[in-house]
Amino acid sequence: MTEKNEMDLLKTAQIDSAEILAVGTELLMGQIVNTNAAYLAQQLRELGISSYYQTVVGDNHARVIQAIHTALSRTDLLIMTGGLGPTADDISMACAAEACGRKLVFHPAEWDKITAYFARTGRKAAEINRKQAMLPEDSLILPNNNGTAPGALIPLLWQQQPRFVVLLPGPPLENHLMFQDYVRPVLLKHTRHQLRSVFLHLTGIGESEVETRIQDLIKQQSNPTIAPYCSEGEVTLRLTQLCTDDQDPDLITPVKHELYARLGQYVYEEGERRLPEVVKDLLASKQLTVSFAESCTAGLMSSQFGDLPGVSQVFLGSVVSYADSAKENLLQVPAFILRQDGAVSQSCAQAMAVGCRDRFGSDYGVSITGIAGPDGGSTEKPVGTVWIAVADSQGVVSKLHRFQGNRAKIRRLAALKAYDLLRRRMLNLGE
Amino acid sequence: MTEKNEMDLLKTAQIDSAEILAVGTELLMGQIVNTNAAYLAQQLRELGISSYYQTVVGDNHARVIQAIHTALSRTDLLIMTGGLGPTADDISMACAAEACGRKLVFHPAEWDKITAYFARTGRKAAEINRKQAMLPEDSLILPNNNGTAPGALIPLLWQQQPRFVVLLPGPPLENHLMFQDYVRPVLLKHTRHQLRSVFLHLTGIGESEVETRIQDLIKQQSNPTIAPYCSEGEVTLRLTQLCTDDQDPDLITPVKHELYARLGQYVYEEGERRLPEVVKDLLASKQLTVSFAESCTAGLMSSQFGDLPGVSQVFLGSVVSYADSAKENLLQVPAFILRQDGAVSQSCAQAMAVGCRDRFGSDYGVSITGIAGPDGGSTEKPVGTVWIAVADSQGVVSKLHRFQGNRAKIRRLAALKAYDLLRRRMLNLGE
Repeated sequence: MTEKNEMDLLKTAQIDSAEILAVGTELLMGQIVNTNAAYLAQQLRELGISSYYQTVVGDNHARVIQAIHTALSRTDLLIMTGGLGPTADDISMACAAEACGRKLVFHPAEWDKITAYFARTGRKAAEINRKQAMLPEDSLILPNNNGTAPGALIPLLWQQQPRFVVLLPGPPLENHLMFQDYVRPVLLKHTRHQLRSVFLHLTGIGESEVETRIQDLIKQQSNPTIAPYCSEGEVTLRLTQLCTDDQDPDLITPVKHELYARLGQYVYEEGERRLPEVVKDLLASKQLTVSFAESCTAGLMSSQFGDLPGVSQVFLGSVVSYADSAKENLLQVPAFILRQDGAVSQSCAQAMAVGCRDRFGSDYGVSITGIAGPDGGSTEKPVGTVWIAVADSQGVVSKLHRFQGNRAKIRRLAALKAYDLLRRRMLNLGE
Repeated sequence: MTEKNEMDLLKTAQIDSAEILAVGTELLMGQIVNTNAAYLAQQLRELGISSYYQTVVGDNHARVIQAIHTALSRTDLLIMTGGLGPTADDISMACAAEACGRKLVFHPAEWDKITAYFARTGRKAAEINRKQAMLPEDSLILPNNNGTAPGALIPLLWQQQPRFVVLLPGPPLENHLMFQDYVRPVLLKHTRHQLRSVFLHLTGIGESEVETRIQDLIKQQSNPTIAPYCSEGEVTLRLTQLCTDDQDPDLITPVKHELYARLGQYVYEEGERRLPEVVKDLLASKQLTVSFAESCTAGLMSSQFGDLPGVSQVFLGSVVSYADSAKENLLQVPAFILRQDGAVSQSCAQAMAVGCRDRFGSDYGVSITGIAGPDGGSTEKPVGTVWIAVADSQGVVSKLHRFQGNRAKIRRLAALKAYDLLRRRMLNLGE
C-alpha cells in the first residue's frame, strides 16, 4: 500500500474502540493513582467510543512495546499517558515510535518552545530536555500549554487496519487540557455516532429519594436513558440520547421537563457548572456582592469561589476566624455569645454572617461554624455539628446540619450547604 | 503430577511477581477511579513483590477469562478486584473458577454469614445474594467483615508453575481490609525478599536540576536505587533497597546522607507528610502561631492548613482580601501603596503580611498577592506574577514568583511556595 493510500484510509477511518495504556513505574508501585484513565475513559464515552481495556506498565522497553502491539491488534485508538519527561526512564515516545515503525526526529520549533517555557519561569532548559523535542515522523504534534513535554498523534496502518496512537503527558492538568484542546477535535471527525448528554445537578435531596420519585421514568425510558448517580452531598441525573448525526430530533427536552416538574427546586444546574459557579453567576446577574466568615471550613468555601475566573466582580473577601479572638476582633462577634453559647451555635453563626457583611460592606454575608473533628466533639455537639447562616439587608437566616464522615468530608459538605443556603436565599426558596 | 505433589509445591512456592486485574465496566466508563490498584500496588511493593502490569477489563466473560490466562502465563500472583456482587454482571468469581479449572460450590456457612450481615443492617438477604456463597473448590475463603461478598485465594499449578489467584471485593474499604487481614499474612510466607524505601520530598528546585546534580549517584547505584519523579512544584527522590530479610545492613542511610549534602536545603520531608503538615509540626514544636493574608489564592492556603487535624494549636486565622478595600480595612495596607505600587507588588505583600500578623497577634504572618488569571495580566505584571511575604518579630521577607499554568495551577503553586518561604524563614535558610 502506498503512503498516499495510507493517508486516505486514515482520513476516513472510523474510531469505534479505544484503550488506555499508562506508562510509569510510579503507578505500579502505588505512588500515584491513575486518575488520567478515569478522565480519559469518561471523555471517550462521551464521544461514543467504547473502551475494553486499561493497562499500566512500568518504564520498561520490552513491556511497553509489547503492550502497544497488543493494543494495536485489538483496538482502533490507543491513548498512552505518561513517560514523556526528560529523564532516562521516560521512554514512551521512543517506544511508540519504534512500535509504530516511525523514526524520532528533532523538531527545532518544539525545542524553541521548551526553552521559552523555561525562560518564562526564570530557568534554563537543561541538555536532557532536548529529548522532549524528539518526536515521531509523520505524526501530529500536540502542543503542551501547561508544561514542557509535547504530545503526539500517530496515524498508522497495522496489519492493513487504520490505527491511531496518541501520547499524552502524565501530569493530570497537562494530560486533560492537551486531550481537550488537541485530541478531542481530531477524534470528533472519526466517530460514527455521538452521545448527547444533559446533566441535572441536584442538592438537598438524597439519591434514594430521587430514585423513588422518578423510578417509573427510569424504567420507561430507553432513549434517552436516565441514570442517577450520587456524589458527596449531590445527586446527578444523566440523560443520554444516542444520535447518528446532528440532525436527530431532540428527545431529551420533554423528559427533562418532566424531571423538573418532580424535582425542580433541588436542581441547581443543568450544565457543567458546579454550585459555586452557579452562585457566582446568580450574584453577578443581580450585581450583588458577598463575603464569607469561615471557621471549621478554614477558607475552603473562599478557595472554591476563588477558583472561578472573574469572581472578583462579586466576591469581596472573607475572614477565616479559627481562633475565638479572631471572631471577636475581626467579625465583632460579641464576647457574651462566645461565652454563653460557644463558637458552634446559632447565635455565633448569625453574628459571624452579620459581622462579615458589615466589615466587607457586601450585600450578603455567609458564615460557617462547626466541629470538623476528629477532636472537639461532645454529646450535645458531636463531630459533624455545623451551623450555617446568611445575612442580607432583610435579616439573617441560619440552618443546623449534622454531617457524617471524616474531617475533610465534613468540611466539604459544610461549604456545599453554605453555597446552597445562599442560593436558596437569593431565589426565595426557603431554607 | 498428583494432587499431593501440587499442594507441596504450593506450600514452598515463592512469590516474586504479581499483577492486578480490576473487573468493572464502571472503571472503563470512567465513573470511578481505580484507587484499589494504587493501594494494592503499594502493599505488594512493601512485601518485595514486583508488579509489572495492572489491567482493567469490563464485565465480559471472554475478556475476563483471557485476562486471567494472560496473567497466569507471566506472573506468580494475580490479584483480582471487583465483580463479586450479587447481580448478573458480577462475574469475577465464576470466571476465576473456570479459568483455574475449579468448580464453584455452595458454602452454607458463608450463606449464613451473608444473611446475618443483612439482618444486622435491618434488611433481608435477597435470593440473588446466594450467588455470593458460591466459591471455588480447593481454595481459601477470605472473610469480608465489612460487606457481604467473601473473597477467595486459589492456589494452582499453571503449566507446572505454582500460581496464586486472589479475589477481593471492589469497594475500597472492604478491599483494603480483606487484603490486610487475610491475604497479607499468607503472602508473607511466600516472599523471598523485601523492599525498604525512603522518600525525600523536595521543593524549590526543578526535576532536571535535581537530576543533573545527582546523575552520577543514580548511575552508580544499584542497591539502593534512586528514582526521581516530579509533581506540581515538587520533586520526590525514592531510595529503594532490596533486602533478603530484616537483618540486612542498612544501605540507604549513606546514600541519603550524600543526597542531603547536595540537596539538603530543598528537602522538606523524609516521610509521608505534605508540606503544610511539615510547617504545622514545625510551628507546634516551637510553640509559635501563624495567620495568613491571601489575595489571589483566596483561602487555598488556609483551607490546606485547615485540613490538618489539631491545626488550631498553631493557626489563628486569615483574611482573604480579594477587594482592595479589604486590604485597607482589614489588613491596614496603606492606601498610598495600593495607589502607587498596586495590589500586586512587593510593598503590598509586605504590608499584608505585617498587617495580618498584627491583626491576629500571631508570631508569623504570611501573605500572597498575585495575578492568577485568566484576566488581569499586563506586560509588566503578566498572569502568574505572585508576591509572597513572611513577617515575624525580626521583620519581613518577600519573594517574587512568575508561575506558568492555568488559574488553578498558579494558585496551588503560590500556596506551596508560601508554605516553603515560611519553612525556610523558620529554619533560617534564606529565601
